[in-house]
Amino acid sequence: MHILVTGGAGFIGSHLCDRLIERGHSVVAADNFHLGTRANVAHLANEPRFELVEMDVSDRPATNALFGRTPFDCVFHMAANSDIARSHADPSVDLNNTFLTTFSLLDAMRQHDCKKLVFASTSAVYGEAPGRIREDHGPLRPISHYGAGKLASEAFITSFGENYGIQCWITRFPNVIGDRATHGVIYDFVGKLVRDPSRLQVLGDGSQAKPYLFVSDLVAAILLAWDKSDEKVNVFNVGPSTTSTVRFIAEAVAKAFGSDPKVEFGQGNRGWIGDIPRFEYDTGRIEALGWRPNHTSDEAVLKTVDILVGAAIR
Amino acid sequence: MHILVTGGAGFIGSHLCDRLIERGHSVVAADNFHLGTRANVAHLANEPRFELVEMDVSDRPATNALFGRTPFDCVFHMAANSDIARSHADPSVDLNNTFLTTFSLLDAMRQHDCKKLVFASTSAVYGEAPGRIREDHGPLRPISHYGAGKLASEAFITSFGENYGIQCWITRFPNVIGDRATHGVIYDFVGKLVRDPSRLQVLGDGSQAKPYLFVSDLVAAILLAWDKSDEKVNVFNVGPSTTSTVRFIAEAVAKAFGSDPKVEFGQGNRGWIGDIPRFEYDTGRIEALGWRPNHTSDEAVLKTVDILVGAAIR
Repeated sequence: MHILVTGGAGFIGSHLCDRLIERGHSVVAADNFHLGTRANVAHLANEPRFELVEMDVSDRPATNALFGRTPFDCVFHMAANSDIARSHADPSVDLNNTFLTTFSLLDAMRQHDCKKLVFASTSAVYGEAPGRIREDHGPLRPISHYGAGKLASEAFITSFGENYGIQCWITRFPNVIGDRATHGVIYDFVGKLVRDPSRLQVLGDGSQAKPYLFVSDLVAAILLAWDKSDEKVNVFNVGPSTTSTVRFIAEAVAKAFGSDPKVEFGQGNRGWIGDIPRFEYDTGRIEALGWRPNHTSDEAVLKTVDILVGAAIR
Repeated sequence: MHILVTGGAGFIGSHLCDRLIERGHSVVAADNFHLGTRANVAHLANEPRFELVEMDVSDRPATNALFGRTPFDCVFHMAANSDIARSHADPSVDLNNTFLTTFSLLDAMRQHDCKKLVFASTSAVYGEAPGRIREDHGPLRPISHYGAGKLASEAFITSFGENYGIQCWITRFPNVIGDRATHGVIYDFVGKLVRDPSRLQVLGDGSQAKPYLFVSDLVAAILLAWDKSDEKVNVFNVGPSTTSTVRFIAEAVAKAFGSDPKVEFGQGNRGWIGDIPRFEYDTGRIEALGWRPNHTSDEAVLKTVDILVGAAIR
């Protein structure tokens, strides 16, 4: 199969390229290198079924031209702004990188008769919802522009699906961590300690508890959903049933860094506007297909801390 | 209060301007005259508290400049593409006119500290949902680009609301009819009979039954929600509890036209891709505030047929 992976040199996208190449597919990775890096896919450089294209998927003529050149059977759309905190100051980041990338792709797929789309959505579409959130939860009131950009994307994915027969697989997931991560709390904590090994300042009081998903577990879920589910619209929550507190993460990073920093907590239970302090959601649908994460949230944190601290102090 | 009404020379927007002026507010109506007309607000020309500005609200610098010139206390955002059938061939119409108008406004409100937004959404955000649909219904899977553009708008309205303290009133309503209508089934039927008084071709078999809402009843509901509800996010379904079939409408138009046309029905129960054949939804929330429509769906149809046929054959 000829597959386009947008954000293919990014964190999740590059892992996905690895698995798709292993399965024998031909893969074009499109990336604008805002968050992705050539290093993330350097190991695929001599792979004849892999091609890396530098482009911005929100550029509609460029995206259309790419589809004109290569007839794709399926698109994995991973490109997005993944830095929720940043977009508070500039909402256009999520308009352009999270939403307009999706619209640009959908319109190219429509014009070039590409009928399958796998989309990386987010648990942030639910906003601050109570209880164990299922995929059919309502109302959907995202409180971050990132969540809004993903929900806006989902909205047009379903309307394009109905209008032009495009089938979709949408996974909604929380914080993803692991090797090649480009952002997120562990990445930020390591960066702070690199700049000042004597102290680690934490936004909020450390009590925020969220599920952290290891990247290989996520990629396995995305591919399983794509393999096993065959509705017009296939939506799956993906995430571990366990959570990790910010305190646990801060202390794990501090310990691994080895500089015995003073860990300083802030006030309140959220790190920034749009941050959701606690949530849990129902992953029964993806589990019914046979998915289980190989890492609890705390295991995913510890493994990622090892990798990121190792890379930073090497 | 200084109020901006986008789409203010349009069908619903112009009626809203009338009511807001009556209440003593100062109103700026912004319209690009794609669907709106100067005739719709000609009766307000000598009103000192009314101003008509020709502009496209999706033009972000122009919108920003308007807010820089006039400090608005509240925005009524009515501008949108309202022709669902048209956007199948060109989804960019709903991207630009339905969604990007909203984003442009939100970003101007953020920068100019405007804190109140009243938004005209649609029952199309629900897609093809079973049962009596409440405001907290999930999942939301719009099947028209119009519904997608409105849901995408709602998504960013809630994230801007959370990030910058913008309060919103969102009404979701079905087909609205009445004087100054610029589109819709009655408008189309009258247009067909003007071109050929001997026959009236109907898309679908005529069995589609939908609620039709008279424009004055809708405007009353929008203003009541704004007056009486004071949450951060206020969402209301609005519509009559009754429905009208396409057959009823076709026969009413044919009879009023007086040319004894042959009414020819098509096949199937939907008129176009993205058309939703039957739905009903729960309006208990707006009724709890005291709202009741003054017209049943059939009464709204008959009154609109009189107005539009009268204007056509005059």
